[in-house]
Amino acid sequence: MPISMAVSKQQELAGSIDVDLSRVRTPQYGRYLDEFVPGQVFVHPRGFSFERAAMLDFARTFMQANPLYLNVEYARAHGFPDLPASPQMVFNVVLSLGVQNDSEKAIANLGYYNVQFLRPVYAGDTLRAFTEVADRKERGADKPGIVLIRTLGVNQDNLVVLQYERKIMVSYRGNRPPTTPAPTTPVAFPWVKTPTLELPIKATAFPSDLTGPNTYFEDFTSGDIIIHPNGRTITDEHAALTYMVGNTHPLHFDRVFSTGLSGKMSGEPIVYGGLVFAWLEGLASRDVSENALWELGFTEGYHTQPSVSGDTVAALSRVLAKSEAPGIAEAGIVTFQFIGVKNISAANALETHGADLFVKENDKQPLGKEKLASKIFEIERRLLIKRRPQ
Amino acid sequence: MPISMAVSKQQELAGSIDVDLSRVRTPQYGRYLDEFVPGQVFVHPRGFSFERAAMLDFARTFMQANPLYLNVEYARAHGFPDLPASPQMVFNVVLSLGVQNDSEKAIANLGYYNVQFLRPVYAGDTLRAFTEVADRKERGADKPGIVLIRTLGVNQDNLVVLQYERKIMVSYRGNRPPTTPAPTTPVAFPWVKTPTLELPIKATAFPSDLTGPNTYFEDFTSGDIIIHPNGRTITDEHAALTYMVGNTHPLHFDRVFSTGLSGKMSGEPIVYGGLVFAWLEGLASRDVSENALWELGFTEGYHTQPSVSGDTVAALSRVLAKSEAPGIAEAGIVTFQFIGVKNISAANALETHGADLFVKENDKQPLGKEKLASKIFEIERRLLIKRRPQ
Amino acid sequence: MPISMAVSKQQELAGSIDVDLSRVRTPQYGRYLDEFVPGQVFVHPRGFSFERAAMLDFARTFMQANPLYLNVEYARAHGFPDLPASPQMVFNVVLSLGVQNDSEKAIANLGYYNVQFLRPVYAGDTLRAFTEVADRKERGADKPGIVLIRTLGVNQDNLVVLQYERKIMVSYRGNRPPTTPAPTTPVAFPWVKTPTLELPIKATAFPSDLTGPNTYFEDFTSGDIIIHPNGRTITDEHAALTYMVGNTHPLHFDRVFSTGLSGKMSGEPIVYGGLVFAWLEGLASRDVSENALWELGFTEGYHTQPSVSGDTVAALSRVLAKSEAPGIAEAGIVTFQFIGVKNISAANALETHGADLFVKENDKQPLGKEKLASKIFEIERRLLIKRRPQ
Repeated sequence: MPISMAVSKQQELAGSIDVDLSRVRTPQYGRYLDEFVPGQVFVHPRGFSFERAAMLDFARTFMQANPLYLNVEYARAHGFPDLPASPQMVFNVVLSLGVQNDSEKAIANLGYYNVQFLRPVYAGDTLRAFTEVADRKERGADKPGIVLIRTLGVNQDNLVVLQYERKIMVSYRGNRPPTTPAPTTPVAFPWVKTPTLELPIKATAFPSDLTGPNTYFEDFTSGDIIIHPNGRTITDEHAALTYMVGNTHPLHFDRVFSTGLSGKMSGEPIVYGGLVFAWLEGLASRDVSENALWELGFTEGYHTQPSVSGDTVAALSRVLAKSEAPGIAEAGIVTFQFIGVKNISAANALETHGADLFVKENDKQPLGKEKLASKIFEIERRLLIKRRPQ
Repeated sequence: MPISMAVSKQQELAGSIDVDLSRVRTPQYGRYLDEFVPGQVFVHPRGFSFERAAMLDFARTFMQANPLYLNVEYARAHGFPDLPASPQMVFNVVLSLGVQNDSEKAIANLGYYNVQFLRPVYAGDTLRAFTEVADRKERGADKPGIVLIRTLGVNQDNLVVLQYERKIMVSYRGNRPPTTPAPTTPVAFPWVKTPTLELPIKATAFPSDLTGPNTYFEDFTSGDIIIHPNGRTITDEHAALTYMVGNTHPLHFDRVFSTGLSGKMSGEPIVYGGLVFAWLEGLASRDVSENALWELGFTEGYHTQPSVSGDTVAALSRVLAKSEAPGIAEAGIVTFQFIGVKNISAANALETHGADLFVKENDKQPLGKEKLASKIFEIERRLLIKRRPQ
Repeated sequence: MPISMAVSKQQELAGSIDVDLSRVRTPQYGRYLDEFVPGQVFVHPRGFSFERAAMLDFARTFMQANPLYLNVEYARAHGFPDLPASPQMVFNVVLSLGVQNDSEKAIANLGYYNVQFLRPVYAGDTLRAFTEVADRKERGADKPGIVLIRTLGVNQDNLVVLQYERKIMVSYRGNRPPTTPAPTTPVAFPWVKTPTLELPIKATAFPSDLTGPNTYFEDFTSGDIIIHPNGRTITDEHAALTYMVGNTHPLHFDRVFSTGLSGKMSGEPIVYGGLVFAWLEGLASRDVSENALWELGFTEGYHTQPSVSGDTVAALSRVLAKSEAPGIAEAGIVTFQFIGVKNISAANALETHGADLFVKENDKQPLGKEKLASKIFEIERRLLIKRRPQ
C-alpha cells in the first residue's frame, strides 16, 4: 500500500541539542588480515544495474574497437538479443562491488587468476557479487599476510556471469577498531566448478565491413609480437571512473588519505588497477580483439607498478597459443600475453627491454634480472576470435 | 505535416557583408537586485529529461550507497515501479534550471531552507522549474541586498516533486545593461502549502542483504556523532558535473570571468555548491542513509566556505532527533546535523575543533567564537529510514 | 544455434614460449598522402549506437540551450517522435568514425565545407560512416599535400543523416611502414546530390515558455553582432570527450606522442577541433539557437589556432543573412558568421580587434593584415529558426 504522509515544516534543531563528544563512532569498511576466515562468504552491498547508454559510454571511454560493444545492430547480426556489456566493464564492476568487504583495507592487489566470463550481461540486467575467502596466508606477526579470495557476479536470474580468484595483501588489525561485522547467517556461494560458456551466437554470415581485415583468427600465429601504436595519457578522469564502477577504496580518490600513508604508496591517489587494465585492453583492441566474439578470460594478471594521473600508458601483445573452439567452426581460440608500459611508447619499450619485457616480473629475481620500472602490467588472456569470412 | 525542404548549397557570405560595430549587443542573464520584484514568477527555461542511465551515473558519481538509486531490482522490491532519481540529483537539477533567472548575477548563495521532496522522479520524466520572488531585502544603496526565492520542480503531469526556499546575495544593477526581461504574462506558482509525500512503498519483506546491518532506524540514537571515514578529492570534474546538472553561472567554469572578479571570489572557478553537498552526502551514505526509504528534506543549509578543484572534502553526521513516521510502521524519521570539512580528515577535524564543529557559523560571532576555516558546509536533514527487519 | 562450450582452466603459458624478436609488427592506422586515391571509398569501422541518455549528456556537456535536445516533451510537442540528437553530436560522431581511415596520420584539419544535416538521429539509431576521396593535391615532394574528402553518415535504414566535405593536410609516407590496406572490393558511396531535409515538424502552437523571448526569427537582423557573454575553461575533460565521440587520433590524448612531435604541434595534447566547435556553439546557443528547429549546416569552417587544456574559450555571432524557409511558414532561415576566441572574453576580443575579428584568417595576408593570436575558430552556419508565436 503506497505511503501518503503529511510533511511537516522542518524545525531547526542543532542549536538545542548538546554536543556529546563521548558519543563518537567511525564506521570501518574492508577487513584486516585476522578478520578474514577461510570459508566465509560475503554478499556484497548495493548491486549494479546495467543500462545500454552506460555500457556504450564504458566501451567508448576505454577506446574499445570491437563493434559488439558499440553497435547494437552489429551485436544483433551476430545473434545477441541486444548489446552485451564489455567484459572489462563486467570485470571492473564485479571487482568493485567486492571492495567494501574484500579489499578496502588492502595494501596491495597482488594478482588476478582464473578469470572466466560465462554469460553476457545486457541492458536491464542487475548484477550482485559474492566473495568466498579461500585461503589466508600469514607471514609472521609483523608482516602483512596474503588472502586468496574467490569472487563471482550473478545476474537477476542468479546465473553466474563472471568468476575469478584474486590475491590481496592486507595487514593485521592490531589495535585499530574492528570493521563492520560480516553477516552471521551462512550464505551459499554459487561458484561454477565445471563452467560452460553460453553465447547466443547465430553463426551465419557475420557482417565484416565494420572491422579491419587483419584481425581474424587466421591473422595470428604463435610467437607474433604486436606493438599497439597509440598510447593514452591518464588524467584525473581516473577518479570519476573509479566512482562509475563503484570502487570504494580511498587510495584512489582521497588525497588526504593517500598523502597520509607511509611508504611507497604515499602521495597522489593511485589509479585503480582495473581501469589501467581496461585502458590497456582498449589500446590493443583494434589490433587483436575487434573481431572477437568473446573474451574467455584471463589469468596470471599482475599490476607490477602503480599509475597516477599524468602517466601515459601503452601496450603490447604476444601470441602464445591458438586452438580450435570446441563446438564452433566459425571461430578459434587465441591466447595472448598482454603487457602494459608507461611513459614510454610501446615501440621504445620493446627496443629498450627486448625479450625481458615478456619475462614475468615475479620470475626475474631468480633469473638475476632487474624489474622494469616502465612496465606496469602483465596478464595472459584468451579470446574467441572469428575466422575470416569466406 | 512533416517538412520536406530542398537544401541549397551554402554560399560563403561573410566577406561580402560589412562589419558594423554600432550593431553590437550582449544578452544578459540572471537578475540584479533592483530587477527582482516580490510576487514575480519565473518559468525557467529548457526543462530536464531524466533517463535511467543518467540517474545511475549521477548516483555512482556521488558515491551514493543506497541501492534504491543504484539497483532497479532493489527499487522494485520496495514497491517503486522503477529506479527513482536520487534526491540529490533532483535538487541539483531543479536548482540549476533556475540559475538563468534566479542567480546567474548572484554574488553568493546564502542558504537553503525548507527543502521538501514530495514525489519520486523516474526515467522518462521531464521536469520544469518555477521560481517565485518571496522577498527582497535592501541594505543600503552601496551594498548588495538579499533576495528570498521559492523554487519548485514539477514533472510532466504538473505534479510538484520538490520545493524549497533559497536566499541569495545580489547587487544593484547600477549602470550595467539590463538582463533579459521576465515575461509579462502572469504565471501561476503551484507551491504546495500543506505538502503530502507520496511514495509507492510496498511495505512487505524488504531485501536486506544489499545494505549493511548497522544503518537501520534502531541503530541511531539522538546525540550520536558519526565520522564518515573516507574523503574525496575534487578534481576538474566539477565543471563537467556543473554542465551535467545545467548550472549556467560562469563562476563555476569560466576562468577568464572568475579571475576577473574582485574580492575573495577572484581566482580559480568556484565549485557549484550543490555538487559539494552531493559529494558530502555520498560520503555519508554508507553510514547513515543506505537503508533510507526517502530523503524527506533539508533546512538551514549553508556553504560556509567555497571549494575549488584540488580540495579534499569529508563529512560528519550528528543525530538530532528520531520520531515515528505517521502512517508507516516499517520505518521511522531520523534528523541529522550534517557537516562538511575540507583538506582535513573528518576525524582530525573533530579532534581539532570538538563541539565547535557543530555550532552554526552564523551563530559564532555573538558567542565570541571564531569561524572555522576548514568547515565548508552545514545543514539539517531528515530521512525516512527502515526499521531492522525481524 | 547458441554456443555452449566447456571452459577449461586457463594454463600459464608465457614462460614456455620463447620470445622471437623477429616476429614484431606494428599495425598502422590513418593514411599517408600517397595512399589516398581519388575515387576510393572507405567504409569506416565500428559504427555508433545512439541512446537517449548519451544524447542528453552530450547536449548538457556542451551547454546546449535548445530544449529540442534536452527535453523529450518539448521535442514531441514539435512533432518529433522522440528526442533528436544534437547536430553537434552527430557531426562529432560521424567525423570521428572516419578518423581511422581519413585523418589518423593527418598533420592538420584544414577546413569543413558544405556540411548538411539531412535527417534527425534518434535513440536506438545506429550510424555508420563512409568517406570518398575527392581530390589529392600535391605540393612538391618535400611538402605535405592536401586531400579533399567527402564523408557521410547513414542510419540503420541506410538513409543519409549528414554529409560534408573536409580538407586535411597529410605527409607522404616516405620510408614509414604502410597503413592498414583499404578493402579492395568497390563500395557504393551514397552522397546525396540534391539533398532534401526531412523533418517531422508539426507546425501547430509550439510551446514558448521554455525558451527566451528574444531569439525568434524576427529578433535577428542582418549585420547584428552578438557577444555571447560567458566563456568556458577547457579542462582535461577534452580527452574523455574525444573517447566519447570515438576520435582515435593520438594527438588528442597521448602525451608521449604529442611531446615527441617536432614543430608547433609539439607539446601537450591538442584538443580535437570538433569539440572546440561544439563548446563554442553551446556558449552561443542561448542567444541564437534556442528557438531553432534545425541546424541546416555549416561551411567555410576553420580552426585557426589549436587549443589545449586550460584555455578558456568564448564566442561571437554576426548575422549575415535572413531568408524565407521554402515550404514552412512558421520559421525562417538565418545565416550567422560564428567566431571563437580564447583566453580573452568575447567582449574584450571585439574591443581589441574590432572588425578584423570577422575577416577570415586565410584572407588576411593579401589584405596586409596580421592573423589574430586569440582567434581560434570561424565558420558560417545556417539555422532554421521559429518565428515569434502570435
